[in-house]
Amino acid sequence: MDIAFIGLGIMGKPMALNLHNAGHTVFVHGRRAESMTPLCDGGCTRCDSPAEAASRAEIIIVMVSDTPDVEQVIFGDNGVIHGAKPGSVVVDMSTISPTATRRFADDLRARGIEMLDAPVSGGDVGAINATLSIMVGGKPEVFDRVKPVFEALGKNIVLVGDNGAGQVAKACNQIVVAVSIEGVAEALTFARKNGVDPAKVRDALMGGFAGSRILEVHGKRMLDNAYPPGFKTKLHRKDMNIVMQTAHELGLDLPAAALVTEHLEVLMNAGDAELDSAAVMKVVENLSGMER
Amino acid sequence: MDIAFIGLGIMGKPMALNLHNAGHTVFVHGRRAESMTPLCDGGCTRCDSPAEAASRAEIIIVMVSDTPDVEQVIFGDNGVIHGAKPGSVVVDMSTISPTATRRFADDLRARGIEMLDAPVSGGDVGAINATLSIMVGGKPEVFDRVKPVFEALGKNIVLVGDNGAGQVAKACNQIVVAVSIEGVAEALTFARKNGVDPAKVRDALMGGFAGSRILEVHGKRMLDNAYPPGFKTKLHRKDMNIVMQTAHELGLDLPAAALVTEHLEVLMNAGDAELDSAAVMKVVENLSGMER
Repeated sequence: MDIAFIGLGIMGKPMALNLHNAGHTVFVHGRRAESMTPLCDGGCTRCDSPAEAASRAEIIIVMVSDTPDVEQVIFGDNGVIHGAKPGSVVVDMSTISPTATRRFADDLRARGIEMLDAPVSGGDVGAINATLSIMVGGKPEVFDRVKPVFEALGKNIVLVGDNGAGQVAKACNQIVVAVSIEGVAEALTFARKNGVDPAKVRDALMGGFAGSRILEVHGKRMLDNAYPPGFKTKLHRKDMNIVMQTAHELGLDLPAAALVTEHLEVLMNAGDAELDSAAVMKVVENLSGMER
Repeated sequence: MDIAFIGLGIMGKPMALNLHNAGHTVFVHGRRAESMTPLCDGGCTRCDSPAEAASRAEIIIVMVSDTPDVEQVIFGDNGVIHGAKPGSVVVDMSTISPTATRRFADDLRARGIEMLDAPVSGGDVGAINATLSIMVGGKPEVFDRVKPVFEALGKNIVLVGDNGAGQVAKACNQIVVAVSIEGVAEALTFARKNGVDPAKVRDALMGGFAGSRILEVHGKRMLDNAYPPGFKTKLHRKDMNIVMQTAHELGLDLPAAALVTEHLEVLMNAGDAELDSAAVMKVVENLSGMER
């Protein structure tokens, strides 16, 4: 298939490459010209704008950072709408606001262009190995059309509901992960303050109801007091902003999510934006004067 | 081995039976006389007091509800200390305060009696099937002596540390479970308020980093809006009281644990003490006016 891929960062670059390697014709555009070079050397086609990439493809994938970036790429000067053909599909794989997503989908549909929101989890490792989880919102028939493309990028591919539902699922994922990190951090701090080896406690808990990927992976980072990302605090903070903003729009009270969002903010202010978000442990330790 | 078993409730009864079936000689005592009958019919020996049971055994297991109950059984009138022989071991499998546990261990040791704290997780199903997780605090040589007894009761048996460490691990378990329930409840409420099917969201999340036993088992109860226990709210509330009391003694700030403790209290006040503690979902829904 002819696919435009816009946004060639730590996630987008390996994803575009996987599409090329799966036999698709990939038209790439990145904000930084040098981001396109390795992909074009590998056989993708360089495009000078989102509009140009969109004009040459039937599936237009967007993989950028935040809601304003997606809006700019699709609707801005030289944006996707200035090139996309009626009947093409915009697939936004960025993690952005569900509310803005529904608006973007409506605006595109008014121009005869379909949209799917399809945010992912699994990080750069999942992007490289094509093992991303992909949470999709949109019409079933559009999902079916794009599914072969998703299958070149990930494994657990779920159509969650209508436009925006993919972003809602991703927001839910980030809530569960954030609150679980907080729970593990508080438990391991409780163990340490009681003079009990937190590593032994983690062992004892792993098999039972307290067992989780977060206890296993993030818990290990906490034990080691070492937070190489993984998933950066600044990105988790950005995603929790989306959660809290959406909750505010809907009149939803999410007290634990709000609490962890605060802890991520404290980390940001302490200059730890680049650490894995398991570093919430540092905030929890500091609350009780237990810095290491 | 000759084993005293004191406390024949929903947990203690099947545990005592498993010990008998494993070939041990079991001397039982329950506060309610009728609780002893089925066990004595099955071959255990009835004792009229904790002191009498203790006097006939080398391992004395206590499985009651809370810290004051354990204190009464061990140190009260006709308590264990009035019968236990020097060299015997008191194994407290109740979930109680780590601080009180250390005091009890010291007081017993002063009389030549060893103690292990060995709280469990896995509920009545784990007790019946002898698949409990057992978190143990005490001396390694005492642990080794009692280990064959534990192996007739459970599977994941971990010596976490010195006296009190088992109770600390259990408290950590209850923190992680409680905070994880809150996280899943907030995420599924977020989905529902966004008009997205929470069951689909749970499916999409199960394979990734948000996946956990809590999302699987407690998440299902939340989707069904049905909360048969499982683990009762009143017991989880009691365990979180131990957590918060211990945290207070140590000057520890555990904000998410405190938040969920509040939510369990709200449930209690609403008359939902007998529901599974996944019913925290009801509190989260009510916060945003989403009662069902």
